[in-house]
Amino acid sequence: MEEKCRMKPLAECRVTVVGMGLMGASLCMDLTRGGFCREVRGVARRTDTVLEAFFSGAVDEATNDVQTGVLGADIVILATPVRTIVNTLEEIGPVLWPGTLVMDMGSTKAEIMEAMALLPEGIEPVGGHPMCGKETAGFAAAEPGLYRDAPWVLAPLARTSANALELARALALAVGARPLVVEAQRHDRLVASISHLPYVVASALVQAVAAVGAEDPLAWQIAAGGFRDTSRVAASDTHMFIDILMTNRGAVLEQIASFSTQMETLRVLLEAGDEDALCALLGKAQALRVAWKSKQQL
Amino acid sequence: MEEKCRMKPLAECRVTVVGMGLMGASLCMDLTRGGFCREVRGVARRTDTVLEAFFSGAVDEATNDVQTGVLGADIVILATPVRTIVNTLEEIGPVLWPGTLVMDMGSTKAEIMEAMALLPEGIEPVGGHPMCGKETAGFAAAEPGLYRDAPWVLAPLARTSANALELARALALAVGARPLVVEAQRHDRLVASISHLPYVVASALVQAVAAVGAEDPLAWQIAAGGFRDTSRVAASDTHMFIDILMTNRGAVLEQIASFSTQMETLRVLLEAGDEDALCALLGKAQALRVAWKSKQQL
Repeated sequence: MEEKCRMKPLAECRVTVVGMGLMGASLCMDLTRGGFCREVRGVARRTDTVLEAFFSGAVDEATNDVQTGVLGADIVILATPVRTIVNTLEEIGPVLWPGTLVMDMGSTKAEIMEAMALLPEGIEPVGGHPMCGKETAGFAAAEPGLYRDAPWVLAPLARTSANALELARALALAVGARPLVVEAQRHDRLVASISHLPYVVASALVQAVAAVGAEDPLAWQIAAGGFRDTSRVAASDTHMFIDILMTNRGAVLEQIASFSTQMETLRVLLEAGDEDALCALLGKAQALRVAWKSKQQL
Repeated sequence: MEEKCRMKPLAECRVTVVGMGLMGASLCMDLTRGGFCREVRGVARRTDTVLEAFFSGAVDEATNDVQTGVLGADIVILATPVRTIVNTLEEIGPVLWPGTLVMDMGSTKAEIMEAMALLPEGIEPVGGHPMCGKETAGFAAAEPGLYRDAPWVLAPLARTSANALELARALALAVGARPLVVEAQRHDRLVASISHLPYVVASALVQAVAAVGAEDPLAWQIAAGGFRDTSRVAASDTHMFIDILMTNRGAVLEQIASFSTQMETLRVLLEAGDEDALCALLGKAQALRVAWKSKQQL
């Protein structure tokens, strides 16, 4: 094992989290409360948020200057929208210590991993994506325990040492998440299906209901649980999702096409009044969804 | 006011609920616990359910013979899938007392209202639809308080007396629902948008994710809150929803077309990488969804 591969144990690490939104601030709260590392530093763009993060006790130190924030850190975790992460990687590369573990929590991995590959030699990058978003955003939405039982995808680069990946796993485990090593391209294809497609679908649903609601506002009044759940993710932060869609365009377009084919099949069967075929298809979807839910609860 | 328009107050009524699934059994539980009427009788197809309804105390009496069940009832409430309601109306018409209030809880109204119009003279029909489904079905899923704060659509026929409608309102109010008089066609058009479209969309989403999951099962494993909520209604009872779709085909097809147009708009903008237009559209959907949620919470 070479010298540069030695990493401090998590308990001795200074951790800097860049971005005090839902994901970043929730992570800080868990790290601080659990005493899992030596120090937790938070970086936020807005001074309001810097003060809030500091005075709420979510972090030990806070700043709105990212280069100051990462100075002397053993672990840097970028928790902003995807394209901000890409820009931040360029900005902080030159000031990081050799051996620093650089992680991120971005929802797509391809562009972030490209930027991570350009970090100065000696830096240890590990891409990441904890699967536990909510439709509410910002520091106000943050909460301890957000990561409990959530799958946390980790995507090391070829250059990443085994010890660095181990430290990243230790951090995920510390806050109760289930670390899962997944290659970046595979991750991006999967989340296009299970996360980005639902967002696009939910947004289109809201628009379709809005067209009816514009003519007859009673639609909004009687809308109940079905609409509520199916449309929930449409309330997510638009700018965060624009970054996601734009950095995972190919995979998302593929999933939209696949989904539209399924919709068209159902439409044709309904139009033809083919009850048996409709029942078979809807019954299959029901069985799949029920099976998925039972596994989730194990 | 003619003799035939006089109705007993709710407290003196014998109420028969046909169908001991989620909706019917939950209603019985509320009526029995609250002591809102003289007697609560439940009709179920399966003997198991008859016994369960009786011994759980959800009803005062239970039977699996619908004609026996409705004998002497002042209020009959049909709580089965839509096309079963239509058949039951034909079956019970001849044995009902004049002056009986006949209500239903079907998810579409057009075909039920047609069948209600054919009930013998003197019967008082009021179509209905409480907006509080869940994706779980059957007696086991029933719970007291299901109707609390839920909009309960009431659709009287031209022949329905004001007193009969008043009694239907009193029943909805007794279990905490918010009665709302809506004409049947208008109801069917609105629920096509806010309830039936979400079901079709959720089912197509499950199929699209299943196609990815079949190649890479990790998709199911990392699927989180976004997929969970957007797909939830796909787990609903298939036979109930087949009845809904088949009895509201025109309106549902119209909503599928409207939704598909919205999806296509989003797809084209994403393909073109037109961030500004994409941001405007997704931002609009976000604002609408957030505004709807805030109103719901008032």
